[in-house]
Amino acid sequence: MDLQAALQAQGLTLPPAPKPAGSYVPAVQSGNLVFIAGQLPFDNGVVAVKGHLGADVSLEDAQQAARLCVLNAMAVLGAHLDGDFSRIERVVRVGGFVACTPDFTQHPAVINGASDLLVALLGEAGKHARAAVGVAALPLGAAVEIEFLVQVRG
Amino acid sequence: MDLQAALQAQGLTLPPAPKPAGSYVPAVQSGNLVFIAGQLPFDNGVVAVKGHLGADVSLEDAQQAARLCVLNAMAVLGAHLDGDFSRIERVVRVGGFVACTPDFTQHPAVINGASDLLVALLGEAGKHARAAVGVAALPLGAAVEIEFLVQVRG
Amino acid sequence: MDLQAALQAQGLTLPPAPKPAGSYVPAVQSGNLVFIAGQLPFDNGVVAVKGHLGADVSLEDAQQAARLCVLNAMAVLGAHLDGDFSRIERVVRVGGFVACTPDFTQHPAVINGASDLLVALLGEAGKHARAAVGVAALPLGAAVEIEFLVQVRG
Repeated sequence: MDLQAALQAQGLTLPPAPKPAGSYVPAVQSGNLVFIAGQLPFDNGVVAVKGHLGADVSLEDAQQAARLCVLNAMAVLGAHLDGDFSRIERVVRVGGFVACTPDFTQHPAVINGASDLLVALLGEAGKHARAAVGVAALPLGAAVEIEFLVQVRG
Repeated sequence: MDLQAALQAQGLTLPPAPKPAGSYVPAVQSGNLVFIAGQLPFDNGVVAVKGHLGADVSLEDAQQAARLCVLNAMAVLGAHLDGDFSRIERVVRVGGFVACTPDFTQHPAVINGASDLLVALLGEAGKHARAAVGVAALPLGAAVEIEFLVQVRG
Repeated sequence: MDLQAALQAQGLTLPPAPKPAGSYVPAVQSGNLVFIAGQLPFDNGVVAVKGHLGADVSLEDAQQAARLCVLNAMAVLGAHLDGDFSRIERVVRVGGFVACTPDFTQHPAVINGASDLLVALLGEAGKHARAAVGVAALPLGAAVEIEFLVQVRG
């Protein structure tokens, strides 16, 4: 699995690993599990997609936000692994939070933006269990926040 | 522990394992931990309990929704374990999401529908840590979504 | 690491471990990971901070609620470890839920109340990955709920 080549094939590049939005650390490893903190759709240092699904954010923009969360998570994971992405064994779990109105129901479609990209980048190793829910609001007004649990080797 | 006998004693049968609502997989095992994706209250292929607690869903219907989430999770776990439920060692964690209005406060009572059933089916092995929260909305309009973390042997 | 001395230095004492708000257990250990159930800001047996950020709860009161969640979690962990806090190896993950209005955006500042206290009490071992989100409502009307994942030795 060559994550950099897979990114290139998608026309994507990893951003610098984002700084945490609060007093925590971006990733903690316990055994061979890496817990990656909740990622926001940062792009060039700003939250790129703000608002609520069902009100002022389109499904397409929210899916793009979910993809940005993946790129930021991969940047965090790369920093944690000293750039050695070959140590990724499996994305175990994805927790997706979608800021939305009470009548919004397409949370799976939003978080598919992240899930599909993980599989495009990592193949079988990108297939994960998932929970997707709709929340009242997210940090900095983001439309999407996603946390990741990844099994690594070595 | 004989899950099938315990189900029978409760007058329950397992549904077929539900298909994921998005591009993820129903369960991922890492070491001896099985991460089961967020389950909705599917019954015969449709979400049986839709709406928001505090508005248009009764506590009793929501507790029944929570029980349906357990049955679907057990179906997923059964498929993962090739039907060998004797490999269940412990339900470790339950994450319960309740779609609700801002003034609703009885989330524990809703998710007790799931917790009580897990203990009825699995005894001591069914006792878990839990977080229960109230969210703006859930996939497909479901009133309840629950994810499960289960320790298995072998 | 001497948690009791660190508490004393902060002028804090641990409360009795709170009883679960539903039919679950306060903590479950799997391998060397202890999953602590979602903690509410209980103080002397009552939820001390109720309401919604963005409406009727100040940032300062919510940060105090987050600190109460940590104290209750440490009480639960102490009971689980038979009082031997030296077995704490690392706080791995914190999941913070903030009851809020749709326009609230300072969830990180709220949950920093918990994160800062963990680091003050445990030093490097208190540094964790984190997800912080804003939800519609929480059990018993609490303004904040936090769950904790802690790696222990022995």
